[in-house]
Amino acid sequence: MELFTYFRSSAAYRVRIALNLKNIEHRLTPVNLLKGEQLGDVYRALNPQGLLPALKLDDGRLLTQSTAILEYLEAEFPDKPLLPADPCEAATVRAWANLIACEIHPLNNLRVLKYLKGTLNVSDDEKTAWYHHWIHEGFKALEPQLAAAPYCHGAEVTLADLYLIPQVYNAQRFELDMSPYPKIRSVWDACNALPAFDAARPENQADATG
Amino acid sequence: MELFTYFRSSAAYRVRIALNLKNIEHRLTPVNLLKGEQLGDVYRALNPQGLLPALKLDDGRLLTQSTAILEYLEAEFPDKPLLPADPCEAATVRAWANLIACEIHPLNNLRVLKYLKGTLNVSDDEKTAWYHHWIHEGFKALEPQLAAAPYCHGAEVTLADLYLIPQVYNAQRFELDMSPYPKIRSVWDACNALPAFDAARPENQADATG
Repeated sequence: MELFTYFRSSAAYRVRIALNLKNIEHRLTPVNLLKGEQLGDVYRALNPQGLLPALKLDDGRLLTQSTAILEYLEAEFPDKPLLPADPCEAATVRAWANLIACEIHPLNNLRVLKYLKGTLNVSDDEKTAWYHHWIHEGFKALEPQLAAAPYCHGAEVTLADLYLIPQVYNAQRFELDMSPYPKIRSVWDACNALPAFDAARPENQADATG
Repeated sequence: MELFTYFRSSAAYRVRIALNLKNIEHRLTPVNLLKGEQLGDVYRALNPQGLLPALKLDDGRLLTQSTAILEYLEAEFPDKPLLPADPCEAATVRAWANLIACEIHPLNNLRVLKYLKGTLNVSDDEKTAWYHHWIHEGFKALEPQLAAAPYCHGAEVTLADLYLIPQVYNAQRFELDMSPYPKIRSVWDACNALPAFDAARPENQADATG
């Protein structure tokens, strides 16, 4: 399998963790979002939408959208499950994942920040306040729901952790005060102690730049 | 089952369609978002996050987040499947659903529009332009991917249709020009001809107001 990735893309980061956890043989092909390579002819010929991540299967078919890719990997590589067997518990894990994927991340991605700055002419301070606001809203909702340890759902890593860790990475990068979220910080520590998470960290990618 | 719903909530609308399509016995309990009932003591005692939709199972457990609820219903009520059997095709359907759930809808929901207006002081015109912009970005990406008819993925209704129809409803409500999207409009017509979709329409809800 070939994953098209960018070291700082949260959505690609989720899939990198899953591929590592499930021991799926793969290679990483970097697409530089900052240089606009995702909109270049080479990448658009492969993925007309020009978004990351995209996963090219061995038969040449291309999967897009991290949530769809993760559900695919979960169905096809069930040996190391990332969802609890109980459907109701699985729904809880998916609800946490979706809280991050649908209520935090979309508001803070690059194209939205560009629109705020370029079209609505917001100041840098307003942009940072916006960024922090949506993470705080999401983390305030998530923190009291996390009852177990060391991972979001307890003893086993689940999809929820794959969404949370990249989101915490972003929060830290934008210097968000994480002190109100001790449980989330503890999940961060526990996950990053695992080689599969560590290898997927942005700073450990071949395409990482300062 | 008991679905907590609001007639204009897109996320609740998705779940209403699924319950109808799968012939799952249920009742609808309206929570008036405009009056702030989702933040009142009664509803918060049930769902501390104060968000819609929420699905109360017969054993009293509560599921939240529409995507998690829909995956739960799909797993537990497989008789009328909303995902193709082929995992790769299922990934395509989920990618379309996620394009709407993660790239359009989160940017246009009520709390975001309130932040734009209340905190960033954008004008009404700027707010409408923002609303239209994100739908156009998403629909421009989706339209060329829809190759089949009458529904998003062909002869069978899938999860993608359950996300698309509420999004088109919103687009029309905000008077977005739908002329660039003939395939999406054709899916809209085909879906709304089905009783399960028709009964789920906002204007057909008991809590609908002008």
